[in-house]
Amino acid sequence: MPQIALSRRLRRTPFSEGVEAAGVKGYTVYNHMLLPTVFRSIAEDYHHLKQAVQVWDVACERQVEIRGPDAARLMQMLTPRDLRPMVPGQCYYVPIVDETGGMLNDPVAVKLDEDRWWISIADSDLLFWVKGIAQGYRLDVLIDEPDVSPLAVQGPKADDLMARVFGDAVRDIRFFRFKRLQFQGRSLVVARSGYSKQGGFEIYVEGGDIGMPLWNALMEAGRDLDVHAGCPNLIERIEGGLLSYGNDMTDDNTPHECGLGRFCNTTTAIGCVGRDALLRVVKEGPVQQIRPVEIHGPAVPPCDRLWPVMAGAAHVGNISSAAWSPDHGTNVAIGMIRMTHWDAFTEVDVLTPTGVQAATVYETFWT
Amino acid sequence: MPQIALSRRLRRTPFSEGVEAAGVKGYTVYNHMLLPTVFRSIAEDYHHLKQAVQVWDVACERQVEIRGPDAARLMQMLTPRDLRPMVPGQCYYVPIVDETGGMLNDPVAVKLDEDRWWISIADSDLLFWVKGIAQGYRLDVLIDEPDVSPLAVQGPKADDLMARVFGDAVRDIRFFRFKRLQFQGRSLVVARSGYSKQGGFEIYVEGGDIGMPLWNALMEAGRDLDVHAGCPNLIERIEGGLLSYGNDMTDDNTPHECGLGRFCNTTTAIGCVGRDALLRVVKEGPVQQIRPVEIHGPAVPPCDRLWPVMAGAAHVGNISSAAWSPDHGTNVAIGMIRMTHWDAFTEVDVLTPTGVQAATVYETFWT
Repeated sequence: MPQIALSRRLRRTPFSEGVEAAGVKGYTVYNHMLLPTVFRSIAEDYHHLKQAVQVWDVACERQVEIRGPDAARLMQMLTPRDLRPMVPGQCYYVPIVDETGGMLNDPVAVKLDEDRWWISIADSDLLFWVKGIAQGYRLDVLIDEPDVSPLAVQGPKADDLMARVFGDAVRDIRFFRFKRLQFQGRSLVVARSGYSKQGGFEIYVEGGDIGMPLWNALMEAGRDLDVHAGCPNLIERIEGGLLSYGNDMTDDNTPHECGLGRFCNTTTAIGCVGRDALLRVVKEGPVQQIRPVEIHGPAVPPCDRLWPVMAGAAHVGNISSAAWSPDHGTNVAIGMIRMTHWDAFTEVDVLTPTGVQAATVYETFWT
Repeated sequence: MPQIALSRRLRRTPFSEGVEAAGVKGYTVYNHMLLPTVFRSIAEDYHHLKQAVQVWDVACERQVEIRGPDAARLMQMLTPRDLRPMVPGQCYYVPIVDETGGMLNDPVAVKLDEDRWWISIADSDLLFWVKGIAQGYRLDVLIDEPDVSPLAVQGPKADDLMARVFGDAVRDIRFFRFKRLQFQGRSLVVARSGYSKQGGFEIYVEGGDIGMPLWNALMEAGRDLDVHAGCPNLIERIEGGLLSYGNDMTDDNTPHECGLGRFCNTTTAIGCVGRDALLRVVKEGPVQQIRPVEIHGPAVPPCDRLWPVMAGAAHVGNISSAAWSPDHGTNVAIGMIRMTHWDAFTEVDVLTPTGVQAATVYETFWT
C-alpha cells in the first residue's frame, strides 16, 4: 500500500508525539489533520478495545465555536433537530443540512452556555458553511476554530482510568453530558461520548500545550489496566452501526436516508434552512436507507469505493464500509439499500473488486 | 513512514487505475481525494518533469460550478480581484477571502460564459462558503460540484504531446486561456495552465467515464516523447514559488501577506465581502510576507510542520515548505517572514527537527 506523504497541510496534533512513540502504522486524513487508523493490527486493536482501555488522538474532530447573542438562532438554522430542550452541559448529535436537506456534516454539538457552543465536526469544512450563513444573514456571532483537540478514552475500563486522572466525579457523568474537570490547573470539558460502542469519554483539550502531559498522565495511570494507544476501529464501528461522513453518507443524502430521522424534529425545528425540503422527505419517506449487511464468504478486501449491491441484474444499493469481524466470523458491512430490498433477511449479491459475494440485509446492527 | 489507510472517504479519481498501474508510491489527500505525490522518486520525477512530459492526475482540483443570473455578482463577492475585464475563455487566479480578508482558498476561476463559472479549487471545502453566501444573500444561482476532473499535461514537451491527441489547435492557446477541444466526441475545456513552471495544459475532463480512455490515449501518443505518469513536484514547485494552500498560507493570512497583492484590486472589487478589511491592509501594508529562503547545509528532512525562523533569540518567521534541490545544490524553501527580516540577503537561522541551519532570505524565487 502506498505511503502517506507528510506535509504541514496534513496537520499534526498536540498528541502526535505520543502517537508516533506508540508505533502508529497507518494514517488517514480527516479535517486536514492526521488521524491514526492502526497501531498493532486492526484486529488486535479491535480485541483490545473491547477488553481494556485505549487513548485515542481524535484531535481531528475540530471544533467550530459559535459565540454571541445570535448563537442559538444560528445553531437552529444549521440542523433539523429541535435544540430548545438542550441545556448547558449537554451534547447532541446533530445532522447538519443545506437548503435541500443534504447532509453537510454529522457532528456533536456541545452547549457550553446559552450563547456559546462548540460543534465537534466530522470530515468537512463545516466552518465555511457556518461562516457563510452568518455573514449572509448578518448574525451577531463570532465564529472560529479554537485551539481545542479532543482526546478520547474508550473501552470497558475507561471509567477506572479516567477516575485515576480526573477523580471519581467522572463516574457520575451521564451519556452525552459533560462536566468541567481539572487537569494541571486547567478546566477541561469532559464528556461521556466517543466513536465506539465500548463506552468512554472525550476530553476537549483546550490548549495544545497540555496535550502530551495529559497523554502521558493517562498512559502512566493506566499501565496496570493494559492501556494502549488506539484509534477509531473500522470493525468495531461497523458492528455498532456508527456511520462515517464521507464514507457512508455525503451531501447527496438526507438524514432520513441515513436512519437519522430520530435526530430530526423537522416540524418544530423552526429556522432550519433545510426545513422545507425535509418536510417533503418526511411526508413521502426516503426511497433508500442505511442498512447493516452481512457479506458471506471469505474476508473482503478494504472497501475503498462503493461496491454495487445487486438483486439479479437490478442495482439496488451500494456498500460503503466493510470489514471481516473476528467476533462474528463473517464480513460486517454498511450499505445504502433501496426500499425494494431493505427488509430484514433480504438476500442480495455484492460486487467486490475480488468477485461476487452473497449477502444478507438486516435491520439492526450487530451490537 | 506510515501507510495511508484507504477508504471511500478518500475518494478515488477517474484516473486512479492509471496511477496505480504506473506504480504510485505515495499519496496525499486533497479535497477528500487521493493525490499522488511520488512515482519513481521525488528527485527522479523532478528531473523528468523538466526534460520531458508528464500526465498528472489532479482530479482533486474539484470544481465549484456557479450558474445563473447572479453568478457574476457572487463571483465578485468572493474575491478582491476585479473580475470585470474577464471574458469567457479566460482563467484568473483568484484569492478568495472571508469578511476579515483571511484566505479561504486560492483557486483558478474559469469563465465558461457570462453566467457560468467553474472555480478550480485548492484544498478546502470552498463549496460550503459559496453555498452559505448564496443562501444568506438569497442569490439566484445554482451551485454544485460537477463531474469534472482535471488532468494536467506538464513539461517542455507538453505542446507536442497534446497536439497529437487534440490537434495543433492546442499550440495557439495562450497562457491562462482555454479552448473547447474534442476527444471521443466530447467537447472538453483545455487550458494552458498547471501547477508547474515547465509549461503545459490542464484538461477539464467532463464525465469520469472518459478518464481512462484519455489517460491511455496520452500515454500511447507520447511513448517516444518519454511520457510518464507524474504529479505536482515538491522541489519544482518550491523553486518556482508556487504556493500551496494549507502549507504556505491558511485562513489566518491575507493575500497581501502571501505576495498576492498583484491579484487584488481591492479599491475596484466592489461587492467583495472582504473588501473593507483589505482596504485597511492595503493602506498599512502587511507586516509579514512570503519569501523564498535558502537553507544552507545538509538536506533538510520533510517539512511536516512549521519550522521557526530565528534572528538570534527573536522569532521572525516560519518555514512552511522545504526540499533539497538537485539543480541548485541547496535546500529551497518557502517561509512567512516578518518585515524586519524580509529584505533580500538577510541572514537568519532555521530550527529544523534535526538542528539549527543557517539560511538566507531572498526576494525572488529560483526560476
